[in-house]
Amino acid sequence: MGESRLTGPVRVVGVGLLGTSIALGLRARGVDVILSDASPTNVSIAIDYGAGRWAGDADEPQLIVVCVPPDVTADVIVRELSAYPRAVVTDVASVKKPVLDAVVAGGGDVTRYVGSHPLAGREKGGPMSGRADLFVGRPWVVAGHSGISYQTAAAVDDLILDLGATLVEMTAEEHDSSVALVSHVPQVISTLMARRLTDAPESAVGLAGGGLRDVTRIAASDPALWVQILGANAAPVASVLKDFRADLDDFIAALDEPAAPGSRRAIAEELSGGNAGVARIPGKHGQDKRYTQLVVMVDDRPGELARLLAEMGEEGVNLEDLRLEHSPGAQIGLAEIAVLPEVAEKLEAALAARGWRVAG
Amino acid sequence: MGESRLTGPVRVVGVGLLGTSIALGLRARGVDVILSDASPTNVSIAIDYGAGRWAGDADEPQLIVVCVPPDVTADVIVRELSAYPRAVVTDVASVKKPVLDAVVAGGGDVTRYVGSHPLAGREKGGPMSGRADLFVGRPWVVAGHSGISYQTAAAVDDLILDLGATLVEMTAEEHDSSVALVSHVPQVISTLMARRLTDAPESAVGLAGGGLRDVTRIAASDPALWVQILGANAAPVASVLKDFRADLDDFIAALDEPAAPGSRRAIAEELSGGNAGVARIPGKHGQDKRYTQLVVMVDDRPGELARLLAEMGEEGVNLEDLRLEHSPGAQIGLAEIAVLPEVAEKLEAALAARGWRVAG
Repeated sequence: MGESRLTGPVRVVGVGLLGTSIALGLRARGVDVILSDASPTNVSIAIDYGAGRWAGDADEPQLIVVCVPPDVTADVIVRELSAYPRAVVTDVASVKKPVLDAVVAGGGDVTRYVGSHPLAGREKGGPMSGRADLFVGRPWVVAGHSGISYQTAAAVDDLILDLGATLVEMTAEEHDSSVALVSHVPQVISTLMARRLTDAPESAVGLAGGGLRDVTRIAASDPALWVQILGANAAPVASVLKDFRADLDDFIAALDEPAAPGSRRAIAEELSGGNAGVARIPGKHGQDKRYTQLVVMVDDRPGELARLLAEMGEEGVNLEDLRLEHSPGAQIGLAEIAVLPEVAEKLEAALAARGWRVAG
Repeated sequence: MGESRLTGPVRVVGVGLLGTSIALGLRARGVDVILSDASPTNVSIAIDYGAGRWAGDADEPQLIVVCVPPDVTADVIVRELSAYPRAVVTDVASVKKPVLDAVVAGGGDVTRYVGSHPLAGREKGGPMSGRADLFVGRPWVVAGHSGISYQTAAAVDDLILDLGATLVEMTAEEHDSSVALVSHVPQVISTLMARRLTDAPESAVGLAGGGLRDVTRIAASDPALWVQILGANAAPVASVLKDFRADLDDFIAALDEPAAPGSRRAIAEELSGGNAGVARIPGKHGQDKRYTQLVVMVDDRPGELARLLAEMGEEGVNLEDLRLEHSPGAQIGLAEIAVLPEVAEKLEAALAARGWRVAG
């Protein structure tokens, strides 16, 4: 149990992936968490999972976190503001301006409401997918507005910091155009790519590799949820899609005349632009910047990997993450181990001295 | 060393990722492999790596595999056909019809040439990225044509089977339209998505998550290589991109009028179509169908993972792959272990009996 900034209790409304993860993270810091959901079954599951307790008549929540689907978020916020007149209320919906507008239109007391959005998620939904550390190191936007005081909004900052997330302040409009670019448009593009496969010959689909799988992975997302998100953020998403379409038109024009002067150069410039764009994304794919990776060659004999890990323990080094790349039939596997940066160099030397082949 | 169908020697021209991997795979089966490359340094590295030997004057290769960049593939094939008048020649370029046409135009003896294309690769290039098992379980297309006899082409089939790949027969045209869909268009789409990031505000890019990273991962590919591939397969790629653009136009129209009758339904249908398309892709992302996954909870104490692996060894079970999902600060990690399907059930029971918490 760590110390918490929040004093609690915190009321979490909606115990899906995000609500349960928030609740688990707060419970890990000893905060009293009250759970509420349209489905009592989900509340029971989340309670069994250690995420909190049932609501009681005498509850006086310090903070209420609304984690329900986007199309009912504003209504639930207005209801909670009214039911708990001393609580600060936030929500985690992925679009912020329409929610704020709807809370105002619904007569909600916005001196106690500020919207927020954690940029975190997993493919699986539901309370059983919840993880106390889902938000660690992830950005969490607070979409501030002039109607709430700095002092009141501080409870939401405390929530974010208690969960180990990185606080990002933006206006609701800035948030919505940012997520259109980095989240909503990628969803549309992935979906449209996957759609091309629906009537493709089986033999063609059978040639699919990792590139296609990566590009289309999020096309498996829940349509019901995404209709709500895209509908709520339609204009910013359409704006980015139109810029995308302009580039696509240029690309098609170059491919229609591949031998024409300038066509190859136009294609090369698009590809280089893609290189430059992807280089701006923080963090490397599949890597965690908090750790340093070492690659150790491990002979394909029973017990070799166990010996490596035991010897790391003898060196007093904790393993943060491990990925074994092992080729069937190969004589050697590669153990990619992640350790804290400050111990990496010492460990590399120690393992080398013990006879392991290590690459940094 | 396994038995090989090929009798060898096999001459590999071009020791990049694919050439070196082919050579390593054949060496693992005891085949005599001759290496050639425009860069003697690369040949030296590949030889140090165990991929084969220098060419000699008396070489009489049974099969020549041309693994050079697409824009010089046809020229090298013609040269090799001429230099080794008894050898069967194939290549691994990712576009097949233009190569065949150019070999014919260049006067190559197509009674001894048949093109092929292994659908395998890694992000890293060069001989040091080579892996003997790169092709295991991956599709490898043979683009047959009427000019070569079944008996002669059998050497290419033998190569594919020796390397553990899955032989797929198609015409060159079928191949080129198939890879346009499952490989070349995803590259273009990923590139165009990444390009949108080049002039985005830093604060927006800072919100990027796993979805954007997946969609744009292959946008980091080498522009020089992809200009060649896209230029060579321009018409089939443009055809798929135009279908994509038609869907994109519909999507933008729906988002421009999100409250109009039918707009939400149109968006929902696109999203559901994406679900259906991605479901057609064989294999699950990040999973290997050859193995069964077990998830074991491991307490976050030094030596616990080592104890798990040691106890697996005591049960006589070989670990095929391992992924540790470990949350910083969490009390528990999840070890995802991959084992051969036939031992999974017994191992699950044995580990449970030893007190481990295991989920299948």
